[in-house]
Amino acid sequence: MTGRKRVLSGMQPSGLLHLGNYLGALENWKALQDQHECYFFVADWHALSSNYADTSRIREFVRELLIDWLAVGIDPVRSTVFVQSRIPEHAVLHLLFSMIIPVSWLERNPTYKEKQEEIKEKDLSTYGFLGYPVLQAADILLYKPDFVPVGKDQLPHLELTRELARRFNSLYRPVFPEPMELLTKFPKVLGTDGRKMSKSYGNTINLSDTEPVVRQKLKTMMTDPARVRRHDPGNPDVCPVFDFHKIFSPLPVIEQINRECRTAAIGCIDCKKLVADRLVERMTPIWEARTALTKDPSRLEEIVEEGSRKAGEVAKATLHDVTEAMRI
Amino acid sequence: MTGRKRVLSGMQPSGLLHLGNYLGALENWKALQDQHECYFFVADWHALSSNYADTSRIREFVRELLIDWLAVGIDPVRSTVFVQSRIPEHAVLHLLFSMIIPVSWLERNPTYKEKQEEIKEKDLSTYGFLGYPVLQAADILLYKPDFVPVGKDQLPHLELTRELARRFNSLYRPVFPEPMELLTKFPKVLGTDGRKMSKSYGNTINLSDTEPVVRQKLKTMMTDPARVRRHDPGNPDVCPVFDFHKIFSPLPVIEQINRECRTAAIGCIDCKKLVADRLVERMTPIWEARTALTKDPSRLEEIVEEGSRKAGEVAKATLHDVTEAMRI
Repeated sequence: MTGRKRVLSGMQPSGLLHLGNYLGALENWKALQDQHECYFFVADWHALSSNYADTSRIREFVRELLIDWLAVGIDPVRSTVFVQSRIPEHAVLHLLFSMIIPVSWLERNPTYKEKQEEIKEKDLSTYGFLGYPVLQAADILLYKPDFVPVGKDQLPHLELTRELARRFNSLYRPVFPEPMELLTKFPKVLGTDGRKMSKSYGNTINLSDTEPVVRQKLKTMMTDPARVRRHDPGNPDVCPVFDFHKIFSPLPVIEQINRECRTAAIGCIDCKKLVADRLVERMTPIWEARTALTKDPSRLEEIVEEGSRKAGEVAKATLHDVTEAMRI
Repeated sequence: MTGRKRVLSGMQPSGLLHLGNYLGALENWKALQDQHECYFFVADWHALSSNYADTSRIREFVRELLIDWLAVGIDPVRSTVFVQSRIPEHAVLHLLFSMIIPVSWLERNPTYKEKQEEIKEKDLSTYGFLGYPVLQAADILLYKPDFVPVGKDQLPHLELTRELARRFNSLYRPVFPEPMELLTKFPKVLGTDGRKMSKSYGNTINLSDTEPVVRQKLKTMMTDPARVRRHDPGNPDVCPVFDFHKIFSPLPVIEQINRECRTAAIGCIDCKKLVADRLVERMTPIWEARTALTKDPSRLEEIVEEGSRKAGEVAKATLHDVTEAMRI
């Protein structure tokens, strides 16, 4: 174990995971396990910051998230998989950090105003929404990770975490190393309507969808809008189904589609059938693992309990360093 | 135990307790024990909200506070005496409340701006200082008390706690009863310089002062400023030493001083000696109890551990209700 760098990452249980999350975050997490000591957590308290008014599905989303992670290959033996709300030290460190972070640091956080303006249908003027980065900093620093995988848009949050670490270290004594970003390029996965795949657009293919659902979603998936009739030639460059081929099909198939679409040698129905077969092939082992985990809730609970126990030990040790440094 | 109402109160470990605290809060707490089920806690996390930059004496103040409480007669058998930072549920409920409380409720809190303007030498523009009432609400509601003893100046805070209870109950389901205030009239105890006794004026007589220190402080205590020489008649109505007589001396002595001061029949030195004797008499059992507790730190630790265990059970039960209501 020594010599391995520690990586920490988390996800909010705010919905069911889809192909975009899988190809973006999860494939990356899976790869990180080979080189690093990984901590992956379900940020269920975070989900409250924007979903406090309707918490009805949070528990379901927590469970489904864990099932998805394990089903795609997150390995609970090599990695520590846990749930934030099972580790009260997250809340304690959040409280302690709240005492030393200037409100102005939070008000100038670019995502604060942006999100408030973006999500008009919810009341996000809460204290907790303002303090989102404080909880995030606690989540991260509790595990003293070397690296945090982030997309470009989250860089300001990680920078705020580092600033908070520096502030703590200088007010009391050095406790927190500054975590480095592991910049992750998230491939843009398009949804069934041709826009970016996102649960807020209702255009997702979820890991928990069944085969018939996936096939049906592909059947009604948007294609090149200029290709109206079967004998019209199409343009794969503007067709979201072709993007799926590029991700899921082998090179000869991709080349075949690229050629035959332009000459109308292949129709959209057949083209979609080809990619659906590939997608089903890719998802079948995930579905099998999902089914096994779903049927055995006690196994899932055991994994989470063991992961939370391991994470809790690290969290306790850090919090001990923190309270000693603060002399409280 | 049934039928008794529950009372909760706390104090910040931000200094050594003085006669003002004793005659105001502690005598009241002592009396409350006879009728109610009392929870008394040291709010050490709260102390960080204004003292985060210098935490060097917090642990000492926590210990001295507990010693003072027990020495004046707070009874750990009848009452639950505990330390906030030993109950992580305070931090968890604070985090959950932070998600549902609008920032505007905190910004309009009258003590927020007041204190910031009052205490210019410290930087109180932190997230935690803004959120002070959120932590206070968590501290209170975790124990579902019937009554909270407060001074008039704290009424807005308690009202905010009730508003938060109502908001939680209506967002999720009824979990929190609304605690009622137990309005406490704090007698105004004057310090050695004639101003209100307060640690920020450096004019206090502390419960932890020794007898020689108390006698010395009384000797140099301010009297009627118009009485310059021994044979000048004095005016007890404007003399802070006479206020001490009214608190600590028996009626005949009070009447004697009231008479003899006005005719210069008694001088300030003798008058102060009389009240010093009474004060020492009153404080001697406290000093003895303090000495015993100071000499036996393991006994103090046992009391706090047992109190924190009992409080922790109540806190856990409430937090369970809370997470079930929120379905997280």
